[in-house]
Amino acid sequence: MVPSLKRLLAALRRLPGVGAKSAQRIGYHLLRAEKSESYELARSIVNLAERVALCSICGNIAETTADENRRPVCEICSDPERDEERLLIVEEPYNVESFERTGVFNGRYHVLGGLFDPLAGIGAEELGLDKLRRRIAEAAYNEIILATSPTAAGEATAAYLRELLEPLNVRLTRIAVGLSAGADVDYADEVSLRLAVEGRREMH
Amino acid sequence: MVPSLKRLLAALRRLPGVGAKSAQRIGYHLLRAEKSESYELARSIVNLAERVALCSICGNIAETTADENRRPVCEICSDPERDEERLLIVEEPYNVESFERTGVFNGRYHVLGGLFDPLAGIGAEELGLDKLRRRIAEAAYNEIILATSPTAAGEATAAYLRELLEPLNVRLTRIAVGLSAGADVDYADEVSLRLAVEGRREMH
Repeated sequence: MVPSLKRLLAALRRLPGVGAKSAQRIGYHLLRAEKSESYELARSIVNLAERVALCSICGNIAETTADENRRPVCEICSDPERDEERLLIVEEPYNVESFERTGVFNGRYHVLGGLFDPLAGIGAEELGLDKLRRRIAEAAYNEIILATSPTAAGEATAAYLRELLEPLNVRLTRIAVGLSAGADVDYADEVSLRLAVEGRREMH
Repeated sequence: MVPSLKRLLAALRRLPGVGAKSAQRIGYHLLRAEKSESYELARSIVNLAERVALCSICGNIAETTADENRRPVCEICSDPERDEERLLIVEEPYNVESFERTGVFNGRYHVLGGLFDPLAGIGAEELGLDKLRRRIAEAAYNEIILATSPTAAGEATAAYLRELLEPLNVRLTRIAVGLSAGADVDYADEVSLRLAVEGRREMH
């Protein structure tokens, strides 16, 4: 294999979900594609590295300004129209986008950047929970919504956050777990059914 | 989503095998990775676009020289040690690598760059078969080995090549089809078994 292709395949294989075969497919695709496609891909990678950083307040992604001395602040944190009384805690920046698309929440976010994973060495320090506690202690939120996924790791993280934040005397809520909208009771798994019953609400 | 990330995801989604979710995973991976990883990836993409082209003789990939007026010629075509009497015809440049790794063939290659696919508009012209016919007519090969895959498209391509090359009065061979090495007769599918019987050879 020619050195330039070998070098590209090595760089591609460092990406998540890209193995030897997919790196090869991408490499040969770029070899045959218009050069402009390769240049646009390379430029957009460099552009991301140079212009996007994590928000210094909430951990969401932020397009940085030309002023390098200013700490990066995302669109939501710099929007004066958002509700200051509610904070929704999520795992990843793309979770922020998902909640934003629903239009159901107009408060502030906090992005953990991961979930508790002791085996991988991800704990309170790696998730910046001290900074989160300080952020909540210094503000006047009426409600903190824990919106990590209802998976083992998401639940463990939510449980830890409850312990951590309870002394601050602020209302803590957890997003609902139950059947997906449109799901058939007949096909639902046992755990989802049990959680749907346990999480039942009064009908008004 | 910030514009720089949106731009990168759009460029990533043009790659084969990369959908919305995998583009997102790659994008967020690069956001968190060391900047040097992004720069190396971008540089290797540009490097490939600028330094690698298809060999003007056989269609294999070739690292180009600084001399822009010279037509690109791959390592194998420019190697005087290779057997000039045998030509092995494959579908893609990475097939050349596979055959090279076996060490069983020391002749020249011809890379079609695809297989017959009339529905996708890929025919004799797109595969450059005229050029291949000319290459063979002008040389003195003792044997042309058709090494496209034993799939429907690979067989159709081989059959077309046989028709095309027969008037040149050169020995045409086809790679063997049968059971894979290590395969259990008990688990082999019907077609493989039939082909293994049909392709039986004398034991010396």
